[in-house]
Order: sequence, then C-alpha cells, then structure tokens
Amino acid sequence: MSPCPLYHDAVELIGRRWTGAILAVLLEAGPLRFRQIAAAVPDLSDRLLAERMRELEARGLVVRTELDVGVQYALTDMGRDLDRAVRELRAWAQRWLG
Amino acid sequence: MSPCPLYHDAVELIGRRWTGAILAVLLEAGPLRFRQIAAAVPDLSDRLLAERMRELEARGLVVRTELDVGVQYALTDMGRDLDRAVRELRAWAQRWLG
Repeated sequence: MSPCPLYHDAVELIGRRWTGAILAVLLEAGPLRFRQIAAAVPDLSDRLLAERMRELEARGLVVRTELDVGVQYALTDMGRDLDRAVRELRAWAQRWLG
Repeated sequence: MSPCPLYHDAVELIGRRWTGAILAVLLEAGPLRFRQIAAAVPDLSDRLLAERMRELEARGLVVRTELDVGVQYALTDMGRDLDRAVRELRAWAQRWLG
C-alpha cells in the first residue's frame, strides 16, 4: 500500500515551489531564455528561478545552452514527457479550483 | 504564456512535502484510519501527517469521520478525481526515475 518511491520522488520534484509553473511554461512555449521564463512566472525572484533551473538541469529535465543573446533553457525528452501529467493536473485544477 | 494560476495552486497543493504520497495511498486503498496512513507513508511524523490531513480536509480533498475505532479519512469526489493525474505522474516516474 506504500506509495511507489519513484512517484514520491517525482511529486516532490515537480511540486517544489515554482517548479511546476516553470515546467508548464516550457511545455507550452518551447525553449526560452532566462528573462522570458522570469517574465512568464511573476513573483518569482531571479535568485530562486536560477536555483530551480539548476535543479531541473541536474535532474535531467532541462538543458541549458549559452547563446549570444543569453542563456536558453529547453526541456529534454524526459521533461517533455511530463506533458500528459501536467495536462491532467491542469484539467483537475480547472474542474475543482475554479 | 503565464501558467494558469489554478494549475499553479494545484501543483503547489499536491506537491507539498508528503501530500502527494498521502493522496496516492488513499487513492489506492480507499478510506483509511490515521494509523494506517502513518504506516503506509514511512518517515512521516504523526505531527506532520496530522497537519497534512488538516490541510487536505480544509481544501475539500478529504473528509474526516470519527469512528469508534479512531478517526477515518476518505477522499471526496474532488480528491478521487486526482486519480488520472496521479497515475500519469506515477507512469512518468517509472519511465524516467527507475
């Protein structure tokens, strides 16, 4: 009956403050620069956004590329594969929290 | 491009430490008493479990019933409706974190 430890890991990874919002923005918009993510997720400080992006990169959900115009972040296959889970959670939120 | 605020609320609610695990246990097992949830989610203190159950009750995901044998918690329709989102996240975790 205990919850699957992999699921537990996943829910705590994605549920970290702001991480779910950052992933939703990247899923919807595709690769983005740091400033674009910052603009899309209001109330999130640059310091905390940088920390979250480092975590997502370390866990393999995001790749970071240095471009002339700044740093760009893109979801990996692993990150993009969260699409269905994010959509189900968004649909639930719209049914019950609206 | 900003993430839906309802989704943001949902992911932060469910992603709170241990909450995702507690919900998965109730989804799988049906109504449970406090001690059964505590046994199913190891490493979670009674104090923190009680706090999480109060939050879930306040948000309408869980109902609390006093029985002769102790307090029982059951998911509401709103809580049970998380089933698909939890299953998608568990499947993702098994694909990528295994």
